[in-house]
Amino acid sequence: MAGVKLSDIRPVVWDQEVIVLLDQTALPLLESEIRCTDIEVLVDAIERLVVRGAPALGVVGAYGVALAMIEGKRKGWTAGQTHEQILRVRNARPTAVNLAWGVDQVVDHVSEGIEVVLERAHQIAVDDEQANRTLSQHGADWILKKTGKAKLRVLTHCNTGSLATSTWGTALGIIRELHSRGAIEIVYADETRPLLQGARLTAWELHHDGINYLVQADGAAASTIMRGLVDFAVIGADRIAMNGDTANKIGSLGVALACREAGIPFMVAAPSSTVDLSYANGDSIEIELRSPEEVTNLHGVQIAPDLSKGFNPAFDVTPGKYISAVVTEHGVAETSAGETVEKLVR
Amino acid sequence: MAGVKLSDIRPVVWDQEVIVLLDQTALPLLESEIRCTDIEVLVDAIERLVVRGAPALGVVGAYGVALAMIEGKRKGWTAGQTHEQILRVRNARPTAVNLAWGVDQVVDHVSEGIEVVLERAHQIAVDDEQANRTLSQHGADWILKKTGKAKLRVLTHCNTGSLATSTWGTALGIIRELHSRGAIEIVYADETRPLLQGARLTAWELHHDGINYLVQADGAAASTIMRGLVDFAVIGADRIAMNGDTANKIGSLGVALACREAGIPFMVAAPSSTVDLSYANGDSIEIELRSPEEVTNLHGVQIAPDLSKGFNPAFDVTPGKYISAVVTEHGVAETSAGETVEKLVR
Repeated sequence: MAGVKLSDIRPVVWDQEVIVLLDQTALPLLESEIRCTDIEVLVDAIERLVVRGAPALGVVGAYGVALAMIEGKRKGWTAGQTHEQILRVRNARPTAVNLAWGVDQVVDHVSEGIEVVLERAHQIAVDDEQANRTLSQHGADWILKKTGKAKLRVLTHCNTGSLATSTWGTALGIIRELHSRGAIEIVYADETRPLLQGARLTAWELHHDGINYLVQADGAAASTIMRGLVDFAVIGADRIAMNGDTANKIGSLGVALACREAGIPFMVAAPSSTVDLSYANGDSIEIELRSPEEVTNLHGVQIAPDLSKGFNPAFDVTPGKYISAVVTEHGVAETSAGETVEKLVR
Repeated sequence: MAGVKLSDIRPVVWDQEVIVLLDQTALPLLESEIRCTDIEVLVDAIERLVVRGAPALGVVGAYGVALAMIEGKRKGWTAGQTHEQILRVRNARPTAVNLAWGVDQVVDHVSEGIEVVLERAHQIAVDDEQANRTLSQHGADWILKKTGKAKLRVLTHCNTGSLATSTWGTALGIIRELHSRGAIEIVYADETRPLLQGARLTAWELHHDGINYLVQADGAAASTIMRGLVDFAVIGADRIAMNGDTANKIGSLGVALACREAGIPFMVAAPSSTVDLSYANGDSIEIELRSPEEVTNLHGVQIAPDLSKGFNPAFDVTPGKYISAVVTEHGVAETSAGETVEKLVR
């Protein structure tokens, strides 16, 4: 992938009858692909976070329906069996609304045939990129106006870039947009334990784009913010409730609390497909509890004593009242000022 | 060390003319010793965190003076050269006041000979254990009264146990004391990136004592607290200013902010030698900036892209106004209620 422009990086590609995933568990040291020829491989890849990031999972969900149809045809599945396999894809990650959303966008068209389903799936990827670029402009406009600064020091958590979406990114898309306007001084990238999406993936993307950055431990975020080293923070989202309550990667809540304490803006950026108006607030959002071994081991190296038990919630919920701005392709809602996100979905 | 009672574990032992350190960088997988026969080895061990934890460093500082005297005699150093080597020990870690404190407790007695210096150094270790046991009782009494609960769910950050002190521990000493009273339901141990003292050392100590615990990523702390899973948090300290502002392991501040938001007590526990009344507040406490590679690498495994830059402040400063109780062997100061810590040093 060396020499390829970053904006050309696509974590999910449909190639003939196969879903090709850039293996994000191997980055940044190794750039390799996983070719999903059946649902078994795809579900395993989703669970292992070979592909992750809410918007990217939306694309995967839609292509997953197509893949189930093709595998079903090959193996002589009944319509019911095919639907069962589609549900496996839909439920492979509980917290990310986009995976189910992607499935739901195309599943009603299964009876119309593979061409129709595929065309719709491709369109989701196209629409996602457009949404990302548009929300990035909204976010950049808002923060430049809000802070009145020409150069911004920004903190972000997890990975929300090209790798997390069809391409370009959400929170990292806003950072890209600001960089393209010459308005980024430095990015503090939280490493994002346990799976280190920040250290591995965000750093990789920032490095490729030539954006100035520092990787820090998640525990450093509150201090970096409170010491006045940061002008604002921006994160992505896995599910956004009506009042702005936002489920996102574990560690996001701590960043929000520190921003509130320091009096600097805390932004959430996501395509409107992430907004789930069926939730009035975040209280009932299911939090995915992942394997304890992700905490007690790292890259196959045991770091806690034998028999140690890990507690590994993958997400936390940041109350909308702590979020200065929720940004989608349809605009900005200032939920800490009492706005709801209803206007962000059309 | 298997089969030995945990309270017998001592991270620093004087053996003839050698300082013997339990190598904490190798725990929990390997229990090994480093024998410091000269100042070069000792300073390297301090810098690499073979021994760490403020009170343990106090003991190391005092023994370091004795070691410099012995090495000086062996190598024919002048008094000035010996003093220069003592200063190397004193300055090996900038933030931990106890290291300098330990040196200062004995350095004026160098002219009285090695026996006097050694006797005083041994006394520091004895006094530290006594201080730990006494402050643990104060802390346990205070939190049981404050919460009115019979069983407590506690969150802690970094390692503050036998390994961080002469023995027994400070914040972990309070947890031990509560456990001995049958009052601990569970301990959430933050893993404490970058060097994982929580996952490696605190988990190891809790496991040995048979205390129920879970290891979690540092980013999970705010969420665990805000979800109501914790009754209080307790941490140690590297330096405490007059108004209670506390320098401690990076990540402590985020825990304090979450406790404040959740309305639960946040405690700081340390021997009175950690209180530094020459600081009116924490603004001028120097924050040790450690090697970026501790963030971009883990156990020798590269986790961030080539050329990534890490930001690695080892400590943060939690304002005294966010600390419900500062505990030393002399009692409790409720700094969030406006008390100063003056009464905690006699």
